[in-house]
Amino acid sequence: MKLHQGIFLTLEGGEGSGKSTVAKIIADWFRRQGLQVLLTREPGGVPVAERIRELIVNNEMEAMTETLLFAASRNEITKQVIEPALARGEIVICDRFVDSSFVYQGIVKNLGVELVYQINRPVLERVEPDLTFLLDINPLVGLSRIRDNGRETNKFDRENLAFHEKVREGYLSLLKRPEFAKRIRVIPAEGTSDEVARACIEAFSEWYQKRVS
Amino acid sequence: MKLHQGIFLTLEGGEGSGKSTVAKIIADWFRRQGLQVLLTREPGGVPVAERIRELIVNNEMEAMTETLLFAASRNEITKQVIEPALARGEIVICDRFVDSSFVYQGIVKNLGVELVYQINRPVLERVEPDLTFLLDINPLVGLSRIRDNGRETNKFDRENLAFHEKVREGYLSLLKRPEFAKRIRVIPAEGTSDEVARACIEAFSEWYQKRVS
Repeated sequence: MKLHQGIFLTLEGGEGSGKSTVAKIIADWFRRQGLQVLLTREPGGVPVAERIRELIVNNEMEAMTETLLFAASRNEITKQVIEPALARGEIVICDRFVDSSFVYQGIVKNLGVELVYQINRPVLERVEPDLTFLLDINPLVGLSRIRDNGRETNKFDRENLAFHEKVREGYLSLLKRPEFAKRIRVIPAEGTSDEVARACIEAFSEWYQKRVS
Repeated sequence: MKLHQGIFLTLEGGEGSGKSTVAKIIADWFRRQGLQVLLTREPGGVPVAERIRELIVNNEMEAMTETLLFAASRNEITKQVIEPALARGEIVICDRFVDSSFVYQGIVKNLGVELVYQINRPVLERVEPDLTFLLDINPLVGLSRIRDNGRETNKFDRENLAFHEKVREGYLSLLKRPEFAKRIRVIPAEGTSDEVARACIEAFSEWYQKRVS
């Protein structure tokens, strides 16, 4: 397998859907195919983006302020990390990207997907995910996983069940828009991380075959 | 003088143009007319906005990231401070507002006024300045004032003279757009603060007469 240009993959889904573990397994699979892989997540180790992220998760603020801050952080990591890696022809795997803003601020917090899209436009004019794995899980299962893992929680994790159900519905509703549906693959995520990762890789292979044929 | 709704005034201009001193004099004048005045500046004492501001002035980042962060800070102060004061019928005087982003990021850093306008749209749909005093000064005079006052400088102050000249030209170029020209009044700012404040008050009185007649 040889790439003539980078490929940008994103993982999306609610809390406890297993995104970060699955991302690591997928990244290893690509490396075994002899490809350069950049595995990242917002804020991606970029100091300014880290500080923006801390600010968001530790303070209460308006949904619009949150949207602008996420877009600022995303802009900086796109510029400093994602764009250069794609330009080098690497596989970039990002744990959460712009769909998280569409769902959390646009749908769940009612700003509207269109408005959130406009705010993120400077980022999307630079890079757009080629393929997005939406890890779909019953929020009750997802939240119990977080509890069992003893992972540190943030203000989003601590929202009530109704919030997490809205997140799940929000993600699935993105599929109603053709421009999103063409790149989003829904991956059932209640199995083991290996099973979920395998389903992602299958979805990737199918997409890649179509792309090269 | 009695108001049936709030009035939103902004002060704009390069470094050392005297905005904050002039703002205080104007605020006192309005108070002597028996009006409630809210004198503020971004970040306006709103904790989240303060933290965003610190992040901007203490870090190097892309112009677009800066634009998104300023818009986030501005959104929060608009929601928490400016909108409520206008709703109470007060005079709100703000030291810098959206025109600063048009000039510093849109014009001087070349993002384009249109793009910066789009990013600030959520703010501008809430409030728009009724009248803006543009304190116009030769940057050489402005910068020597800052030095003489021993005011602490930030990354914008420390830019070179060419930068500050572009800022001045940028502000003046806003007047080419009718939607901005109708609310912006250019006030020569090389005189004393009292003289400059008097010119602002005259511009206000003229505007106010037209508005009520």
